[in-house]
Amino acid sequence: MQITLGELATKLEVELIGDADLIISGLNTLKDAQVGEISFLANPSYQSQLADSQATAVIVAADLADQVNGCALVSANPYLTFAQASQLFNDRPKTKAGIHPSAVVAESAEIAADVSIAANAVIGEHCQIKSGSEIGAGVVISDHCVIGENCQLNPNVTLYHNVVLGNRVTVHSGTVIGSDGFGFAPDKGKWNKIAQLGGVRIGNDVEVGSNTTIDRGALGDTVIEDNVIIDNQVQIAHNVRIGEGSAIAGCAGIAGSTTLGKHCTVAGGVGIAGHLTITDGVHISAMTLISKSITEKGAYSSGTAQMPMADWRRSATRFRQLDSMAKRLQQIEKNQKGKA
Amino acid sequence: MQITLGELATKLEVELIGDADLIISGLNTLKDAQVGEISFLANPSYQSQLADSQATAVIVAADLADQVNGCALVSANPYLTFAQASQLFNDRPKTKAGIHPSAVVAESAEIAADVSIAANAVIGEHCQIKSGSEIGAGVVISDHCVIGENCQLNPNVTLYHNVVLGNRVTVHSGTVIGSDGFGFAPDKGKWNKIAQLGGVRIGNDVEVGSNTTIDRGALGDTVIEDNVIIDNQVQIAHNVRIGEGSAIAGCAGIAGSTTLGKHCTVAGGVGIAGHLTITDGVHISAMTLISKSITEKGAYSSGTAQMPMADWRRSATRFRQLDSMAKRLQQIEKNQKGKA
Amino acid sequence: MQITLGELATKLEVELIGDADLIISGLNTLKDAQVGEISFLANPSYQSQLADSQATAVIVAADLADQVNGCALVSANPYLTFAQASQLFNDRPKTKAGIHPSAVVAESAEIAADVSIAANAVIGEHCQIKSGSEIGAGVVISDHCVIGENCQLNPNVTLYHNVVLGNRVTVHSGTVIGSDGFGFAPDKGKWNKIAQLGGVRIGNDVEVGSNTTIDRGALGDTVIEDNVIIDNQVQIAHNVRIGEGSAIAGCAGIAGSTTLGKHCTVAGGVGIAGHLTITDGVHISAMTLISKSITEKGAYSSGTAQMPMADWRRSATRFRQLDSMAKRLQQIEKNQKGKA
Repeated sequence: MQITLGELATKLEVELIGDADLIISGLNTLKDAQVGEISFLANPSYQSQLADSQATAVIVAADLADQVNGCALVSANPYLTFAQASQLFNDRPKTKAGIHPSAVVAESAEIAADVSIAANAVIGEHCQIKSGSEIGAGVVISDHCVIGENCQLNPNVTLYHNVVLGNRVTVHSGTVIGSDGFGFAPDKGKWNKIAQLGGVRIGNDVEVGSNTTIDRGALGDTVIEDNVIIDNQVQIAHNVRIGEGSAIAGCAGIAGSTTLGKHCTVAGGVGIAGHLTITDGVHISAMTLISKSITEKGAYSSGTAQMPMADWRRSATRFRQLDSMAKRLQQIEKNQKGKA
Repeated sequence: MQITLGELATKLEVELIGDADLIISGLNTLKDAQVGEISFLANPSYQSQLADSQATAVIVAADLADQVNGCALVSANPYLTFAQASQLFNDRPKTKAGIHPSAVVAESAEIAADVSIAANAVIGEHCQIKSGSEIGAGVVISDHCVIGENCQLNPNVTLYHNVVLGNRVTVHSGTVIGSDGFGFAPDKGKWNKIAQLGGVRIGNDVEVGSNTTIDRGALGDTVIEDNVIIDNQVQIAHNVRIGEGSAIAGCAGIAGSTTLGKHCTVAGGVGIAGHLTITDGVHISAMTLISKSITEKGAYSSGTAQMPMADWRRSATRFRQLDSMAKRLQQIEKNQKGKA
Repeated sequence: MQITLGELATKLEVELIGDADLIISGLNTLKDAQVGEISFLANPSYQSQLADSQATAVIVAADLADQVNGCALVSANPYLTFAQASQLFNDRPKTKAGIHPSAVVAESAEIAADVSIAANAVIGEHCQIKSGSEIGAGVVISDHCVIGENCQLNPNVTLYHNVVLGNRVTVHSGTVIGSDGFGFAPDKGKWNKIAQLGGVRIGNDVEVGSNTTIDRGALGDTVIEDNVIIDNQVQIAHNVRIGEGSAIAGCAGIAGSTTLGKHCTVAGGVGIAGHLTITDGVHISAMTLISKSITEKGAYSSGTAQMPMADWRRSATRFRQLDSMAKRLQQIEKNQKGKA
């Protein structure tokens, strides 16, 4: 991929300050960029790297354009422009066109003409796979699934039956969608399985990371709304609903029947208990446990901050004594008042 | 699936109050049920929904039967009856009978006549798969494994060699059983691998969720006893033993050589350190870290509760000062005593 | 596998005290070992089991050799010698030599003559797989990957394109290497995907557990240096670098662009935030959250210790009041001073 700086500015719809004929062949960080590459400045803490960068051009906000050591691509949102530029230089090998002879596709499946299905993929009965979608090697799609347009299922993804994906949904490898929710009725020391009769519905423009799990509903569906992004190793239990535009980082887990609002961010390792309602615009910091519903937008946390282990041990010991400390503090205040 | 209410009551062994000839075709929540569906009331907090439910019949305890807006299916344990009803309406597509031509089955494997093996599954040497079991697409079963009767291995499950499953074991997709435990001997800054010579033994009536990992033993086996239920994304390390009837929720992790007792519940995101013994009947709340053995049954927790982030920051700062606070409190008490 | 005690001592390069002609056929714990097996004592807390062990020989340090009830294999590092012995008794079935006819190997791939590729594996264009490596059933290796010598990729592993493994790298089942990092630019309530243009580079003598995820770099590579060991269910985000000789236990997660130093240990369930630098020789205890860079070697922790739930509730309630408690404590001290 080679492009002139002028063409690049046109494609990215940004203003170019500099020589439009220079050839660009890649994208890199300010620090690592070489001549022939472009870079970007989105995070102000890297501003000091502008002066020394070897990048042929840098995507920057207007007020920093004069500090660029080379050409400037002036953007109102440099990080967004960087995202768009990254797509231009994307060299991901696409799944080869057509259905690989080793793939096993049920006769009743409806596969659009331009769908790619890679080696050893298995497509179940009555599935629908729409135009432009790529199904990676070793993917298993069980019966009665619908895959929208321009979806990308990476190798070794598994979909159980009755899973519906919208358009432009990307699912990374090892992810399982539609496995049974964890529902059992206890009786006399035994667990009696509750058949999980619902499905999973995923909207448009959703990305799901690798080795994530999204369980089917017990009754009714588990729902991921449009424009949700989910990272790796995330667990989403049965009948959870994730609101539009929310982001869930790696290793987070959301227990059954919880509703997460729109435009929320859930950081890495967060746990959200079941049967809760989290309103729109909530931001949960890393490794926080949410055990009550949240009705006010804003940021929430739990836990304690890192300490050298020896100091931590002392604080942790005192944590066990906190109730006693609080009561003794009250007693002292009473004593002082008594004397005053 | 269509059934009369009378037949349903007979199958579920519960008393019907209402018209035995009504036709039932599904199961739903009180809120979403339509005419022709049954519902259930197991959690008292949904009692207020009884009056408005459109369900043709509701599974309820005897004392609530008169509040049902329709027919009542009177059960001593409504949640258990609901579990049984859910099985009647289960429409999960079964793996097709027989061995799919694309499956690769070792000649030395013993496969019962009615076993189903789906496309692209791989069965190793000297495996035994007993009557009624279903092996999903893309499943890999390595050499010398035993799969009991009526097991269900969902697509893309992996079993290493020498893994033994009892009867009626369900394993969900992406789960790996028998991978190497994390055992290494350090020497001069290098890690020397300890070959993991044990296997994994899983009892009867066990369910294992999706993308869970259960490592083989280093010496001797990792053991999951009968009637254990394990959710998604759980990590069970080498030589762990999980006692009969215990339940482990999503994203929990249990480190090596720990024994969990019988009828314990481990909530989501819990971590249990290695070489511990947890007695029977222990309940561990979400995201708790257990770092010492537990000898008394009961409920255990660690961590702190959710707070708005700004408030949390103040508490977290003070947590670091806790030991100093405790000492100052003692000093004040001494001072007061001195004055008294 | 049968070997005389004399041959065993020679192979392990340790001194034998006892009868060199005894036949050894296995390895076991002190408690479970039978006649014909050897055992070892590495952890002093098991010393009391020496007297009763039925093991034919025990690997011990010199100062304990006279306490062994049988023969002694005297080692300067008994745990290391045990690791070496475990390799001698390792009965893991190797992947069968050659390329299984059901495997799909791209014509442009360079596969060394003695590589084993199991059933239904898929190898992409321009891949290189070097001498002695084993590729398990259902493994998918995308285009332009390099697998060094004597690597072992267990069944159902997935490698995206441009992933490079050194020599003697073991990857356990279900693990995904090279999936997209979680990079999106927000704009008007939508997430705009940043193409992940980097790859993953893994050094020599690395072990990666099962169902772990290692994302490709956004720009530049994610790097795992030599002799790193990574357990199951670990999440390593884009552009992370793990220093030589470090160990990462199960369920840990490391966010994007963080550098972990050399010879660090990260215990189970730890979370490390993004864009941090952790220096060499840092040890992080289980389920700790690291949200700031660490410049001094040593041990670090966060969280609180386990308590009976009723007691914990009281401490957790007081944690919310900590700032108020601290201020009241200061006020009391001021009052006392005022009176002194």
